[in-house]
Amino acid sequence: MDEYKAVAAILKAFYDFGDWERHEIIQPRTLKWKSLSKDEQELLAWFPDHLTSLSQCIASNELFMRELASKVAADWGNSEDSSKWGNSVGSDLDKVRSTMLQFTREWSELGAKEREICYGRITQELESMYPEVEERQRVKILVPGCGLGRLVVELVKRGFQTQGNEFSYHMLLASNFILNHTFVANNYQIFPFIHRFSHNKKRNLQLAPVFIPDYNPGDISFLQRDYPDIPVADLMSMTAGSFVDLYGPPNLVHSDIYTADDEASQFRALNKGTWDVVVTTFFLDTASNVIEYLKSIHHCLKPHGYWINFGPLLWHYENDENVRTRVRTENGMQVESVEPLKGLELTRDDLIQLITDIGFIFLKHESEISSRYCGDERELGGWEYKCEYWLCQKA
Amino acid sequence: MDEYKAVAAILKAFYDFGDWERHEIIQPRTLKWKSLSKDEQELLAWFPDHLTSLSQCIASNELFMRELASKVAADWGNSEDSSKWGNSVGSDLDKVRSTMLQFTREWSELGAKEREICYGRITQELESMYPEVEERQRVKILVPGCGLGRLVVELVKRGFQTQGNEFSYHMLLASNFILNHTFVANNYQIFPFIHRFSHNKKRNLQLAPVFIPDYNPGDISFLQRDYPDIPVADLMSMTAGSFVDLYGPPNLVHSDIYTADDEASQFRALNKGTWDVVVTTFFLDTASNVIEYLKSIHHCLKPHGYWINFGPLLWHYENDENVRTRVRTENGMQVESVEPLKGLELTRDDLIQLITDIGFIFLKHESEISSRYCGDERELGGWEYKCEYWLCQKA
Repeated sequence: MDEYKAVAAILKAFYDFGDWERHEIIQPRTLKWKSLSKDEQELLAWFPDHLTSLSQCIASNELFMRELASKVAADWGNSEDSSKWGNSVGSDLDKVRSTMLQFTREWSELGAKEREICYGRITQELESMYPEVEERQRVKILVPGCGLGRLVVELVKRGFQTQGNEFSYHMLLASNFILNHTFVANNYQIFPFIHRFSHNKKRNLQLAPVFIPDYNPGDISFLQRDYPDIPVADLMSMTAGSFVDLYGPPNLVHSDIYTADDEASQFRALNKGTWDVVVTTFFLDTASNVIEYLKSIHHCLKPHGYWINFGPLLWHYENDENVRTRVRTENGMQVESVEPLKGLELTRDDLIQLITDIGFIFLKHESEISSRYCGDERELGGWEYKCEYWLCQKA
Repeated sequence: MDEYKAVAAILKAFYDFGDWERHEIIQPRTLKWKSLSKDEQELLAWFPDHLTSLSQCIASNELFMRELASKVAADWGNSEDSSKWGNSVGSDLDKVRSTMLQFTREWSELGAKEREICYGRITQELESMYPEVEERQRVKILVPGCGLGRLVVELVKRGFQTQGNEFSYHMLLASNFILNHTFVANNYQIFPFIHRFSHNKKRNLQLAPVFIPDYNPGDISFLQRDYPDIPVADLMSMTAGSFVDLYGPPNLVHSDIYTADDEASQFRALNKGTWDVVVTTFFLDTASNVIEYLKSIHHCLKPHGYWINFGPLLWHYENDENVRTRVRTENGMQVESVEPLKGLELTRDDLIQLITDIGFIFLKHESEISSRYCGDERELGGWEYKCEYWLCQKA
């Protein structure tokens, strides 16, 4: 019931997105324009037309987001009637905005370079580790924090048995749409850059459409044609929930992302030592306590299983002022403590030492690989990550 | 009286900075540490020592900031007794943090590369425009948004009559300290990176000191030795206030940064057509209404005067939800309007067209020059700006 309501609120955020964009983009700029003197308005005579163009992009985004919400609602046990979805909140609406950028990275031609740096490196590694395509269906790969599922699809395309895991309902609903409700490449256009008012060379770059998906995820014809015996339809699966809750060891410290309830406990028990490979990209630094992530990766891998990682160290909770309650068992007693979400942001060298101490052996390690995340090369500026790549083996 | 109080609040922010750093950095991490299980604590045995090191850096920052505040207080008509400075607020404390990064960019060896890209380009341009050193004392250069004054000092060093203008009290107090109260190079150490918990390779890079000033600003011995007739002491001046208020045309739209009061009006009138060169770096995009900036640059330049600009298009008000009241005169009537601070973020091409329309001729224009701002090359990531450089002439 709780999940049902939570999903409904996110569905509503997708549904209300156009109104929010108008409120964020058009409304203040209409006021700004009206506050200018006649002389100033004459100097920027193009301004009202640009607002009209932005409004047209918003109308297009709105159509797309409403189609997405209505198509996936039933898959999540919700009514298709948006009036039953409750109310959306600002932070959820802003996450729909960033979901557009995530679509661009994972499912558009514009994201090809970023994907090659990250997913390309990983798929090449796995192809050389498992050169026999027919054998790959017996290689179980887990992708925690799988976002919109592109890496999962790339691995399934190559014949691996792959499970994606994701915590964010925004990502889950959007990947559900891409994976199960799109059947033609480049069928949809979205306008993710209309929210960017800095670093623009030209107005038309702000208005540039992004076509998605660049690749029809259902199109795994190569596999079906050349390997008719591989049960392609059974290779892919997705789970919704916290990675440590679903794949972590028993008796981890209980918190909002790790529960004692039966369903989670049973699923966790099933996952103990069952995965051949865990693949994480831009994931480790989403941890409030990275030890929990590392122990969970270690726990769910088979003996001598592999962990492949690519990503930066942008600790997501670094500036988060919130706290969570943790309950741990010590000497048979339950100890409760209030834990800030921020505070355990390790340096690269400390993280590597910790990974070793928890029980991994580094087989490969490459440092400071330049990459952007949801960047746009036409922009006059962008965040350049120096990412780490490694292949570890469970000791 | 208002200014007196405003300055006192900023002085107090410098004074309270150590306490704020302890609250921001040490307190949540002490709680985080305590919430860990014994097993987790053993994996991160270095953690308490690192907190001790961070506390030592904070104590050093605190000493420096208190010395700064007490030394400049009298220059701004305030008591040297910090108990009379009122209370500091969080946003002012966070600006002290960014002032440390600004010190690093402008006044430390670490900032040399960033300064070369920006200030180096500008000083070379001016040296080639005015090759006769003795003549430069008659070339009046205005630097709006001069920050901590390094560019002003670099121009004075080369013999130009230079006036810096700055709006931020944080910058004004800190530049006052550097320019008037430091007499030995590298006399002070600050620890600006202790606030950065992401993108760190090693703990000791987070604890790295920055020595300031790398150059003693009073040391203009080259000029005094070789050109004893140049009145070096008279070449430099600084003004405190909004650029459009102090240097803009009359009858600009009145707002919180442009006033009708006599003092401002008289100063504005004095500045009409009096400057040979205006130099702006990382300044244009601080405008809520860039037309006001451009008109002010045009207004204060002599006929055929030069404008040199270097910077990105990171519009500072892009995400600002606040509004200001603007009063403009139209057909003899006063018209008041509520204006969002955001909303006039131009693309590069629109800005260039606007500059031309307002009455400038582009003599040189270089695009997409890579630069960071207050970056640290040892960091595992950073924002890469693509900056524009131009030399314009008033038409």
